[in-house]
Amino acid sequence: MRASKLYAPTLREVPAEAEIPSHQLMLRAGFIRKAAGGVYTYLPLAWRTLRKIEQIIREEMDAAGGQEIAMPIMQPSELWKESGRWEVFGEEMFKLKDRHGREFCLGPTHEEIITDLVRNEVRSYKQLPLLLYQIQNKYRDEIRPRFGLMRGREFIMKDLYSFDKDEAGLDISYKKMYDAYTKIFSRCGLVFRPVEADSGAIGGSNTHEFTALAQTGESEIAVCTKCDYAANVEKAESTVLYPEDETELPLEKKATPNTKTIETVIEYLQLPIEKSIKAVAFQDEKDKLICVFVRGDHEVNEVKVQNAVGAISLRMADKEAILAAGGVPGFMSPIGLRKGTVVIVDATVMEMKNACCGANEVDMHYINANPKRDFGEVLVKDVRLMQKGDACPHCGAPVQITRGIEIGQVFKLGIKYSSALRATFLDENGREKPLIMGCYGIGVSRTMAAAIEQYHDENGIIWPRAIAPYEVALVPVNAKNEAQMKLAEKIYAGLQQAGIEVLLDDRKERAGVKFKDADLIGYPVRVTIGPKAVEEDKIEVKVRKTGELVYFTEENYEEGIKALLAKL
Amino acid sequence: MRASKLYAPTLREVPAEAEIPSHQLMLRAGFIRKAAGGVYTYLPLAWRTLRKIEQIIREEMDAAGGQEIAMPIMQPSELWKESGRWEVFGEEMFKLKDRHGREFCLGPTHEEIITDLVRNEVRSYKQLPLLLYQIQNKYRDEIRPRFGLMRGREFIMKDLYSFDKDEAGLDISYKKMYDAYTKIFSRCGLVFRPVEADSGAIGGSNTHEFTALAQTGESEIAVCTKCDYAANVEKAESTVLYPEDETELPLEKKATPNTKTIETVIEYLQLPIEKSIKAVAFQDEKDKLICVFVRGDHEVNEVKVQNAVGAISLRMADKEAILAAGGVPGFMSPIGLRKGTVVIVDATVMEMKNACCGANEVDMHYINANPKRDFGEVLVKDVRLMQKGDACPHCGAPVQITRGIEIGQVFKLGIKYSSALRATFLDENGREKPLIMGCYGIGVSRTMAAAIEQYHDENGIIWPRAIAPYEVALVPVNAKNEAQMKLAEKIYAGLQQAGIEVLLDDRKERAGVKFKDADLIGYPVRVTIGPKAVEEDKIEVKVRKTGELVYFTEENYEEGIKALLAKL
Repeated sequence: MRASKLYAPTLREVPAEAEIPSHQLMLRAGFIRKAAGGVYTYLPLAWRTLRKIEQIIREEMDAAGGQEIAMPIMQPSELWKESGRWEVFGEEMFKLKDRHGREFCLGPTHEEIITDLVRNEVRSYKQLPLLLYQIQNKYRDEIRPRFGLMRGREFIMKDLYSFDKDEAGLDISYKKMYDAYTKIFSRCGLVFRPVEADSGAIGGSNTHEFTALAQTGESEIAVCTKCDYAANVEKAESTVLYPEDETELPLEKKATPNTKTIETVIEYLQLPIEKSIKAVAFQDEKDKLICVFVRGDHEVNEVKVQNAVGAISLRMADKEAILAAGGVPGFMSPIGLRKGTVVIVDATVMEMKNACCGANEVDMHYINANPKRDFGEVLVKDVRLMQKGDACPHCGAPVQITRGIEIGQVFKLGIKYSSALRATFLDENGREKPLIMGCYGIGVSRTMAAAIEQYHDENGIIWPRAIAPYEVALVPVNAKNEAQMKLAEKIYAGLQQAGIEVLLDDRKERAGVKFKDADLIGYPVRVTIGPKAVEEDKIEVKVRKTGELVYFTEENYEEGIKALLAKL
Repeated sequence: MRASKLYAPTLREVPAEAEIPSHQLMLRAGFIRKAAGGVYTYLPLAWRTLRKIEQIIREEMDAAGGQEIAMPIMQPSELWKESGRWEVFGEEMFKLKDRHGREFCLGPTHEEIITDLVRNEVRSYKQLPLLLYQIQNKYRDEIRPRFGLMRGREFIMKDLYSFDKDEAGLDISYKKMYDAYTKIFSRCGLVFRPVEADSGAIGGSNTHEFTALAQTGESEIAVCTKCDYAANVEKAESTVLYPEDETELPLEKKATPNTKTIETVIEYLQLPIEKSIKAVAFQDEKDKLICVFVRGDHEVNEVKVQNAVGAISLRMADKEAILAAGGVPGFMSPIGLRKGTVVIVDATVMEMKNACCGANEVDMHYINANPKRDFGEVLVKDVRLMQKGDACPHCGAPVQITRGIEIGQVFKLGIKYSSALRATFLDENGREKPLIMGCYGIGVSRTMAAAIEQYHDENGIIWPRAIAPYEVALVPVNAKNEAQMKLAEKIYAGLQQAGIEVLLDDRKERAGVKFKDADLIGYPVRVTIGPKAVEEDKIEVKVRKTGELVYFTEENYEEGIKALLAKL
């Protein structure tokens, strides 16, 4: 490709709306353009990278026994009503009607469609296992689409669905995908961790997220400092913390003027924060109140709360709802709430001694609360977020909290969809059984963005070779110089002949502009054709990642560049 | 690939809803499954064929200087309102709203999006020509989706858009695409004709449809029996027919009881049909009445009528509208209609002598009508459909009418979108000018269906080699026979080694079932491994297209099969 023809409009300024490096750099380097909030056009450079990622995925899916298909993006509502998810997805699902008034959605995922596809055609255990996948646009109406391709409303995903005759078969399919994902992200050059995760709205019981480590990531993950345990903090099981033993003192109500927050009340009472209990009140999708209590220095894990009560969604509770239950916002207490109110107390809180908590009266707190003695009938659950220094649930060593980008997820679905949609088969004994399913997604466009988050510097992107739009940028210093252009054309032809993807920057721009663009776009290797190359047979090759400069001759540049690329 | 693993559920019965061979065979051979009206899942075999067609398209687009991108399927309404097409597309466009109430459509085409993309970034004539394309799902809410992939509501298209600095540049881009299309459809093995066509709702002035010839096609095309003229009948210019000269007789009104149709009136009056004038009344999108008159043996061409009056859509006129204009349904006449009524008279009618036409009274007709003398002020236009035997507008030889499937279309758009969306550039003299555009589509999924319409027999599909899902079916007669399976595995490995795409039918089915499936799915070549192969080193190879049987040995089968495939 010649840069004079390439459609890659670069920007000198950092676009104001772009908050994270991948978004800024993809706009600046001419990879993407916004069409609407969370909806992008992929320009030629981005499309080349995406097609390389897709090809890596395709090869590994095929190697693991997957067969590629393409399911519709436009999905009839009937199947979603059959599975019960038409309402569950709520506003996150784009819905539309056709000219006859029939309802459709734009597929956020494809469990319903694929289950419908196989339910009439897979009849015998002999047809199993079956692994079908596609690479395709997906749609989610995010409240706040942001971070460019990280959280878009139209995005590219690979989704594979496995069908097995039993749990043992599912374990094998799951393992195959887990291993294939490890290969895919390794081949893409990413630094990642498979982490234990929560299964969210898709359902199912066993799941790992493949997380690319990056400080700009939206996922918080707990990583053991000793063993290989890693888990999304939403999922990570917090261990129960036991305080030193104390004699239980009598419960006492105290006036605590102007102490609506934990910070103010512990200061007023001169207590360590570990002696305080914090309240957070939610309402679920049916407006039911849920009061949650964690230790003052802990944070409530909403996902755990949601799972604990089987809620579909949670929001912060209205003042009115709290008052109606006998609570007082800012001074909520498990003691004295109206009977029948859902109260969840974190397991660590349950072990506390002589603690301070609200008293359900304005400017009043209890001290010397002893939950086991004073709280009555409550739901005790692990509902806090894991924190730095908490014990690893596998080995007990302290964990660290780091951030990452979820780029893939593997799920064991079991019979959730096959039983809802009656997708059955006949086993070896002729008995009808529901298919055992798994589903496995990769965010293709997000993987591209994650790679940029991991590989960039102040000058631009630094592509891992496997997913670079071109491997080599070939830059004649002066495109008006005949000798330089002649040599550049010769090397251009030579590199292409050698199967190397090369972009010839034949633009009549200053060398500085061309070097800057090469750095910004992030080609792994830059070859410079200037006077030295023409006069001294010294061809300068710069490695984008290290800045290293190497010199080759017309004799050995091909081999030399191949060797350099092999290491990138 | 092994047939025992391949997900290609075949059906014994012809599905009731499928009317044409491609639809029937794709369902029966396990290529597609319906998800909703006009919405399909592509199973592995179809997906392989589609990806081959896509790859052929991609190679030719790239060779012609095209750059691949991917634009959004979900498009904001603002751009469509800017171009004025938000309303024009009407019910054929799928529309939806996001959670904030913002309007979007599912792209039926991408002129607006691409014009918006380049309008801010292409500034100079030096950046032109620019050719950008994508291969992607498109959406049209057809009133009656039918014929499987022929007229779907979700379908795959390649669309390329060209931007030039002047008409001469557009001519070059258009020619490049015209030639690329010729290569693409030739490489796919199709029998096709580029035909002159009408530009429809997309707009623009110069256009060709690439039409795959097939009796099941929905397009009617007029093809000259002598020169290379071919045109869609909607577009084909009909020549004016001049009758023999006659003395004009006086206009006379005659009672013609029970003669609401042309057939009854000519029988009653004992006139040849060429002496009669037929009326058809339409109403446009604003309910305006349009009365059209053609010769009794001719048919009205609605597209020409629509273009003649600049209407967006036409429907048959209501009885009330006709009466309000002074007409009488069944007896309409250009003579005596209320002033201001739009009357279009076909150019051939205008030359008629002493003809018969309605009299705007029940059971009454005029005879000896001489349009030039009697019809007053009317719009004279070519508004009839070209018929078999009409004169070719290029050479005068008679035309034939044949049918075909529109698989591609090339359009000169000119400045229609660039002026509406203000997409301008600076020319050599620093003057701001609108970009000159062209657009070029290929129905990818429809091309697959068209190939089946052209290549099938009573036993199934007969794929052209270039787009066959696999090139060779390798069939051990008895999969339980060890010697046969051993040889089959050896040849399977050998063919794969030789770069041939082969499906090994390792299923433990009767040979007859496997042969039937091979014919149904339509692999170009079938290799049979039976006793003869094992015992006599005679490997039977059957060519699906001709039924020809050839025998090879273990020594020469690879070369032999390659040579056979090269001819298919």
